[in-house]
Amino acid sequence: MTINQLLQQLEPTSPILQASFGLERESLRISKQSQTVAQTPHPVSLGARSYHPYIQTDYSEPQLELITPVAQSSKEALRFLTAITDVAQRSMDREEYLWPLSMPPKLEEEDIRIADLDDPFEVSYRHYLAEKYGKKLQSMSGVHYNIELGKDFIADLFRVSGYASEVHFKNDLYLKLAQNFIRYHWLLTYLYGAAPIAQQGFLKEDLTDCVRSIRNSDLGYVNDSDVQVSYESLEAYVQSIEDCVNDGRLIAEKEFYSPVRLRGSKHNRDYLTQGVTYLECRSFDLDPFHHLGISQETLDTIHLFILALLWLDSPQQVTKELETAKDLNHQIALSHPLEALPDKAPLKDILTAMAAVIQHFSLPHYYQDLLQQIEQQVADPRLTVAGRLYPHIQNHSLEDFGRLKGQQNQDQAWTAPYALKGYESMELSTQMLLFDAIQKGIHFDILDESDQFLKLWHQDHIEYVKNGNMTAKDNYVIPLAMANKVVTKKILAEQHFPVPAGAEFSDKQEALAYYPLIKNKAIVVKPKSTNFGLGISIFEEAASLPAYEKALDIAFAEDTSLLVEDYIAGTEYRFFVLDGKCEAVLLRVAANVVGDGRSSIRQLVEQKNQNPLRGQDHRSPLEKIQLGAIELLMLEQQGYTPDDRLAEGVQVDLRRNSNISTGGDSIDITNDMDTSYKELAADMVKAMGAWACGVDLIIPDRSKKASRTEPNCTCIELNFNPSMYMHTYCHEGPGQIITGKILAKLFPEILS
Amino acid sequence: MTINQLLQQLEPTSPILQASFGLERESLRISKQSQTVAQTPHPVSLGARSYHPYIQTDYSEPQLELITPVAQSSKEALRFLTAITDVAQRSMDREEYLWPLSMPPKLEEEDIRIADLDDPFEVSYRHYLAEKYGKKLQSMSGVHYNIELGKDFIADLFRVSGYASEVHFKNDLYLKLAQNFIRYHWLLTYLYGAAPIAQQGFLKEDLTDCVRSIRNSDLGYVNDSDVQVSYESLEAYVQSIEDCVNDGRLIAEKEFYSPVRLRGSKHNRDYLTQGVTYLECRSFDLDPFHHLGISQETLDTIHLFILALLWLDSPQQVTKELETAKDLNHQIALSHPLEALPDKAPLKDILTAMAAVIQHFSLPHYYQDLLQQIEQQVADPRLTVAGRLYPHIQNHSLEDFGRLKGQQNQDQAWTAPYALKGYESMELSTQMLLFDAIQKGIHFDILDESDQFLKLWHQDHIEYVKNGNMTAKDNYVIPLAMANKVVTKKILAEQHFPVPAGAEFSDKQEALAYYPLIKNKAIVVKPKSTNFGLGISIFEEAASLPAYEKALDIAFAEDTSLLVEDYIAGTEYRFFVLDGKCEAVLLRVAANVVGDGRSSIRQLVEQKNQNPLRGQDHRSPLEKIQLGAIELLMLEQQGYTPDDRLAEGVQVDLRRNSNISTGGDSIDITNDMDTSYKELAADMVKAMGAWACGVDLIIPDRSKKASRTEPNCTCIELNFNPSMYMHTYCHEGPGQIITGKILAKLFPEILS
Repeated sequence: MTINQLLQQLEPTSPILQASFGLERESLRISKQSQTVAQTPHPVSLGARSYHPYIQTDYSEPQLELITPVAQSSKEALRFLTAITDVAQRSMDREEYLWPLSMPPKLEEEDIRIADLDDPFEVSYRHYLAEKYGKKLQSMSGVHYNIELGKDFIADLFRVSGYASEVHFKNDLYLKLAQNFIRYHWLLTYLYGAAPIAQQGFLKEDLTDCVRSIRNSDLGYVNDSDVQVSYESLEAYVQSIEDCVNDGRLIAEKEFYSPVRLRGSKHNRDYLTQGVTYLECRSFDLDPFHHLGISQETLDTIHLFILALLWLDSPQQVTKELETAKDLNHQIALSHPLEALPDKAPLKDILTAMAAVIQHFSLPHYYQDLLQQIEQQVADPRLTVAGRLYPHIQNHSLEDFGRLKGQQNQDQAWTAPYALKGYESMELSTQMLLFDAIQKGIHFDILDESDQFLKLWHQDHIEYVKNGNMTAKDNYVIPLAMANKVVTKKILAEQHFPVPAGAEFSDKQEALAYYPLIKNKAIVVKPKSTNFGLGISIFEEAASLPAYEKALDIAFAEDTSLLVEDYIAGTEYRFFVLDGKCEAVLLRVAANVVGDGRSSIRQLVEQKNQNPLRGQDHRSPLEKIQLGAIELLMLEQQGYTPDDRLAEGVQVDLRRNSNISTGGDSIDITNDMDTSYKELAADMVKAMGAWACGVDLIIPDRSKKASRTEPNCTCIELNFNPSMYMHTYCHEGPGQIITGKILAKLFPEILS
Repeated sequence: MTINQLLQQLEPTSPILQASFGLERESLRISKQSQTVAQTPHPVSLGARSYHPYIQTDYSEPQLELITPVAQSSKEALRFLTAITDVAQRSMDREEYLWPLSMPPKLEEEDIRIADLDDPFEVSYRHYLAEKYGKKLQSMSGVHYNIELGKDFIADLFRVSGYASEVHFKNDLYLKLAQNFIRYHWLLTYLYGAAPIAQQGFLKEDLTDCVRSIRNSDLGYVNDSDVQVSYESLEAYVQSIEDCVNDGRLIAEKEFYSPVRLRGSKHNRDYLTQGVTYLECRSFDLDPFHHLGISQETLDTIHLFILALLWLDSPQQVTKELETAKDLNHQIALSHPLEALPDKAPLKDILTAMAAVIQHFSLPHYYQDLLQQIEQQVADPRLTVAGRLYPHIQNHSLEDFGRLKGQQNQDQAWTAPYALKGYESMELSTQMLLFDAIQKGIHFDILDESDQFLKLWHQDHIEYVKNGNMTAKDNYVIPLAMANKVVTKKILAEQHFPVPAGAEFSDKQEALAYYPLIKNKAIVVKPKSTNFGLGISIFEEAASLPAYEKALDIAFAEDTSLLVEDYIAGTEYRFFVLDGKCEAVLLRVAANVVGDGRSSIRQLVEQKNQNPLRGQDHRSPLEKIQLGAIELLMLEQQGYTPDDRLAEGVQVDLRRNSNISTGGDSIDITNDMDTSYKELAADMVKAMGAWACGVDLIIPDRSKKASRTEPNCTCIELNFNPSMYMHTYCHEGPGQIITGKILAKLFPEILS
């Protein structure tokens, strides 16, 4: 049975790009002050390492390990890594950043604190490794690239293979990939090697010149020379590692370090019966030119490289050919960054295989471009990562470069801190909730991105969340009640909460007959299902019968039912109530500018729009103020033009409505609002039976206290799925955290 | 302080029609077999009389008392009565009906079983009454009309009254109404009296001729002559009743029978401090020409009459004038049905007052019509109820008439038994749930009719229900998950339930790149949010690439995302799962007819459409089969014209789709479906975390059993808010009760 030439036999339409991916990236936390590894413990905000699926520590306490979940595409994997990196960066002390290079900055053995984990085995294992390899060597960081070939792709291969057992087939397939990976590892080292120098004293013997990748050479973090593992067969591979463990050359199977490892079971021997399920490629140095340590193009080039490994035949004389390949890799790893590939490198074999895969399966043009990039990098070493890094070496050091890049990356993470990088297309509240989930180590899966539908889980406990706060904590019928203004009012009124008096009509004659009852009152006439304020008439003074009739016609044009309600004068506040407690109070005021005695209104708007919280299309917590027709008319009505200079302290409103979406300001007044109103709002929500609810209260005079008997306010609306981000990132006021509280209530077992 | 001339002082726009209403109607259950009062106990299906708010028994076990909740209009009150009557009629033994007349059929004292109530006081009170008045007299039935004048109307009156205390004002107002009601009671007796004869032996002395209303005369159910109650003042009224109770002339205040009573407190004396709140007018005989015992026009005429009582001054010499009026009423009650009003009746006063009210307040023309009807009835006694009833008296008996009317009413109640009379405009499932609630004595309030939003309650326990089964029993996020096909599939697939394999695409190129994976399969291409089947392409055999691409274009024209799924062949069944248990299984088949060897297809359709379950626009459990363009084309494709005669037993489909809404048949196969499928469907719903859920399974061969490992079926959809009525009223099969189970789970404290 042979595993060669299988790919060649597949139909060109076979889904060979089908695969799943996982990435792991290590990186050191660096203190800005000491300019070396941070002495602080793993950030407390990152929850518990005993279960955190995404953010762990590797060997030492400051060495973060960022782990993506399994992704169905390399793009998704990089997106996961983007978000996890963003969370890690923003969970660290603001005086720290992530080191962007595989080789650490200058550090002393005693600066390196072994990771302070709960598991005593993991701690003692790290002490053993420290003893054996030295703590400095362990500080080298890189990226692991895990790939599992697609189910349908493997099924196609299996079909043409002639194998009887799919387990045996997959084992041979992945073994062949591992063999060929080692055979052609030197190409990856040439292209992506990025560990050209060690700080003085890092190596036992300082190198005389720059190289491509210390980490990928024998000077890297490698096993002792007496650890020899066979790739002749899977049985030999398993046996030789077991032998090393049995006679103490290795303390455990996982101490076997290799640029590539077979994966899928805890114990290697299980592969023989259960099968290898994926490949772990461990050789990638951190790409310092990419803030994630690896780029999309690199991920896809590796994928193409792996498919080429499958296209190529297996080595004939496995051990011998792999030894030769290892030597070649060592040589290239220790060659100068600007040195070309040696002639003996079997470059043509692998490049031809890549081209053949592209052609046979008519891969998208993108892969042709990737291959062309490789050819250019082969032709010109300056285009490789090491080649591009070389000019940044100053005084035989990359410390200044690393510091600059690291701080740039950290600053970038803190721009638009309301957004979760990689997920900016989702709603802000969902981004914030996802940030919190990743931070606390709660598993997440986006079941439907456009629907903002998340699955969150910890161990066996699953919670589904839609739009940030639609959860199992609310019951079904109550949000449906809140979606209906008439029903909401009836329920609140029955429990003697203050709501505007009024009536509903679906017949114009009946609505006209109601006139006597409202003829002396300020009223609002509105369609029952108001959409964006259409069809609403407000009479701040009593309406004449013709005016009332006209308002009825306007409202009936929008809906078959309308409401005639008392108009309530006063200021509107939004109370965010969660699980019976008011967590935030917001005042929204119309878009406005305040004069400084020098600037025109137009300039003041521009200045105000500089606030990084202001953006467009709900991608930011606040919207940029426009100077459109409505705003210009509003200015004109007040006797201004946009070019008028405003005296210091003079405030001019640019809108009548106070919506955030039209440039309004959000003012967090949670701490200033009298407790009596917060309690009343919470009581309303409890009476309604809702869990997460936004309560809109009109308060004429908030210096007075509220009570059940004298509420001094009126509830004009209850909102299901209330906005959360607007309470957190405010134009004014401290802002209140909401999504974190949602999460803590969903997972009290780990977050309370 | 005087209460006269107040109405005259009000502005014409004062809301004088504002009032709330309540109706009580008594009626005897009659056995078809014995043709006299039923000997059966109060129907068990009507829940417990200890708390039933709507359906009670009056004095005797067969005397039903139907009680409406307080209604905001007479129309709403009559609608309540319509529904409650419908429920009462359909909860009785099919061999019984309600007696439509105030005077009972021939009965013997020993036939009358005193109501078998739980409360020992109520039972002994009834025994005392039986002793005192005789059980026969207690069998007379009537309608009580309760009215409370509107809040704003009373406020307007109070404003012009000069009174300082609103309680005193209201007391004087309602006392005046009561005084004037007794003064003009004779008019109501003339118009609505409908108790012309008693069956032989009913009265101590048989009457020689027909009269207007035995029940409204002194021969009716009246207190002994030593019970004299003063209407001079409220204090005198309270005191004189108390005196009767204290010296034993009455056993309790409620034993005081009068055509009108002041109401609002349990003890009359409380009126002095808390105020009378409404008026109970007790004099109305059952109108045998209306199946509810009273008509809309009568209700509104009474309302106009009461407003006229308010327009008129109070009596000057209360006791004297009321005595005179009582005598007049007695005389008219015992006059012949075709006898005109005596000249001494102060007809002009009351008619003029009615006209004045109509004119002063510009009441709608409808009230003018009502007044005109009174004038016509006054002019021609044959137009009064007694006058119209007179011709039906045969052999000095109304038994035949009563039997006919009673049975007609009962038959009418059983037509369209899926509907709740009065609420036919609501969704069928909501009508059925309301029926169940009224039957079991659960309070209901329709918070929003067009939104199908109900409030149900028993004591302090409130449940809200929307669309029949959207309740607090489901949590918020799960129905939202079920509304999203992709999310539903992911959740089911993660738990290893059978769902069609497939993928979601929002990019055409990616969808095209997927072709290799489906190129040999039967597939469905559909927009992610399918609406009415638009944009769906089914390939029962593998699609060519151009056909696949066209299907993508069609789907993308409907939505920005589409699904490509395996096409699953087999029969689709709907499983209704509630609270972890499958309660019903339905097979839906396309609209079809089966030949009888004689009729044409057109005739067969007509015959099938005669089924009372078939109607139009979802007002019935099944829809009438159309012979429109689609059906004709379908016939043509099978080589038929609508006028072709079909051989016996030949079935011809008229539609390809099996929707009930296009004339399809519903077949209840709950009892035939193998338990293994019901359990699998229930397991899916439990895994999903839903309470009420419709599971659509495709089963290729239901002679095989289902299991978790070999499901032998595929779930193509989970439905939140699944239809319930279609399981209950089926074209074929026994039908399953669902709404009753919903209710029992909502109120287990009384229904389990």
